[in-house]
Amino acid sequence: MVRRRLTIDEYINGIISGNRFILSRAITLIESALESDFELSQQLLEKIMPYTGKSIRVGISGVPGVGKSTLIETFGDYIASNNHKVAVLAIDPSSQKTSGSIMGDKTRMEKLSQNPNAYIRPSATGSSLGGVARKTRESMLLCEAAGFDVILIETVGVGQSETTVRGMVDFFLLLMLSGAGDELQGIKKGIMEMADALVITKADGDNIAKTKAAKAEYKNALHLFRPEESGWFCNVLTCSAITNEGLPEIWEEVEKFQAKTKSNGWFFECRKRQNLKWMHDSIQEELIRKFYNNPTVKLALQTFEENVASGKIPPYSAGEKLIEIYKK
Amino acid sequence: MVRRRLTIDEYINGIISGNRFILSRAITLIESALESDFELSQQLLEKIMPYTGKSIRVGISGVPGVGKSTLIETFGDYIASNNHKVAVLAIDPSSQKTSGSIMGDKTRMEKLSQNPNAYIRPSATGSSLGGVARKTRESMLLCEAAGFDVILIETVGVGQSETTVRGMVDFFLLLMLSGAGDELQGIKKGIMEMADALVITKADGDNIAKTKAAKAEYKNALHLFRPEESGWFCNVLTCSAITNEGLPEIWEEVEKFQAKTKSNGWFFECRKRQNLKWMHDSIQEELIRKFYNNPTVKLALQTFEENVASGKIPPYSAGEKLIEIYKK
Repeated sequence: MVRRRLTIDEYINGIISGNRFILSRAITLIESALESDFELSQQLLEKIMPYTGKSIRVGISGVPGVGKSTLIETFGDYIASNNHKVAVLAIDPSSQKTSGSIMGDKTRMEKLSQNPNAYIRPSATGSSLGGVARKTRESMLLCEAAGFDVILIETVGVGQSETTVRGMVDFFLLLMLSGAGDELQGIKKGIMEMADALVITKADGDNIAKTKAAKAEYKNALHLFRPEESGWFCNVLTCSAITNEGLPEIWEEVEKFQAKTKSNGWFFECRKRQNLKWMHDSIQEELIRKFYNNPTVKLALQTFEENVASGKIPPYSAGEKLIEIYKK
Repeated sequence: MVRRRLTIDEYINGIISGNRFILSRAITLIESALESDFELSQQLLEKIMPYTGKSIRVGISGVPGVGKSTLIETFGDYIASNNHKVAVLAIDPSSQKTSGSIMGDKTRMEKLSQNPNAYIRPSATGSSLGGVARKTRESMLLCEAAGFDVILIETVGVGQSETTVRGMVDFFLLLMLSGAGDELQGIKKGIMEMADALVITKADGDNIAKTKAAKAEYKNALHLFRPEESGWFCNVLTCSAITNEGLPEIWEEVEKFQAKTKSNGWFFECRKRQNLKWMHDSIQEELIRKFYNNPTVKLALQTFEENVASGKIPPYSAGEKLIEIYKK
């Protein structure tokens, strides 16, 4: 069965009235690689813009095994049960290769997905982190227009994806394990510096003493960092997805952050900067997209690729010549 | 004192005859952000292309504290003392912010820099990893044309820079510490999968037993990985920059790799793929560079940035409108 194409008004009205079915179709539209879908999705985004921006955007990161999905499930459920509408998005540049994590998330978040105040969208697939980031930002706007006032963005990849998520959220939550050795600090320092709160997971049973020790250690480490431009000081919390202890405190921290940074203006300053970066990112993606979609380039590309592969033309010269063809 | 601009022929002849002073000036030319320098550097690269590609390109990575610079210094010295000409380049996207590491390297590699068979170039600074990567690749070609037959490329940043270096070298060496806990494995798996050899550093004094245990553990972990397309199996070695033990074995491993992958064709296949990626990267960088250097765009950009910052125009629309201006 072929589904009928929705009109732009059907999309807009559906989203603004909070229709999840239409929200999902709109996100699919945005994730589409078809040129015709691209035009429509850009129109849609422009129209819904006045309805966006009113949520608190929270990024959640941590090494594999830290219990990210479990925390998002229980934390999301806690927020949704306290009169908030929660949307969960994931940013996963590796999803093209291994779709395992996405399927895993779907299963693990079964409870949250049944909560009427929650909406879960598995991560966008894309050929580059930039492409995935763009789609995640656009999906976030659609969710906001549909009335979700808390957006949780989970990082699934490692490394660069944390920086990408940090660039699109208001509050960055970093999950940590107790008992991580000193060796780990070297890698994590850059990521720890981006955090608005550290949360040590699995604070239950035999693990409680270890968690307390880790909390003291991380607090100590954080004191070495320079104070944030935001006037906010990163705190260390603990939680358990088994006993649910610590979840209200995490949410309180997010609310305190909002109050403080909205009153000192940082919240808005930060969004301004993010919007500027967003503009430049979209310019760059669009330049590249237009190039590769150009019919003359498409025709010529294969020959150039063959000549570069066989060593007939140096890579740069091939690139320059293709750009000359494009300019004509 | 203003230095006289060299002609293209002076650059080419200087580089091909192995003149280090001119090699250094050529790398500076390539790193320049001036439009006039860019044209000249592209001409230069095209002309020296026939003299490039004859080195073995080795990437060296590892977490901070693993002893990367120390190993490169002693390993480079070992290779250079065995009738090879060694060039050391670093890829460091963070260098704009913290120039500490570069100064550190310079000091620490003092011994190697005095070896007549060695050439050390501190990392290019750049606003993006893509820009740094481009300059490092171009510097590598210049070094090859100047007769260096071993290029060592050090990663200084964390995360994404490993993938970038892996994409421009033949052999990827990953340095490891003994006694790194299980927690580390989660982060490292992706990077370990890229390695052609693991080298456990600091195998001296009280540390020897720990190093042996780590070697066994890593060997075990590597057995879980799928066999490489290259037909090469990643081995685990140990070394000490104090006693110099293990250095000949690392070099032997690089030579074995070369022999094996040149005979089965992988070496050339891999370079082909790298050249293709290189072509696409250079296209994308060039599209973006041309856009921002366009006089009309330069004039309009500030107003658009102000309107995006103040919320008057959504980021996408601003981006689209700027591209329209550019197309005219």
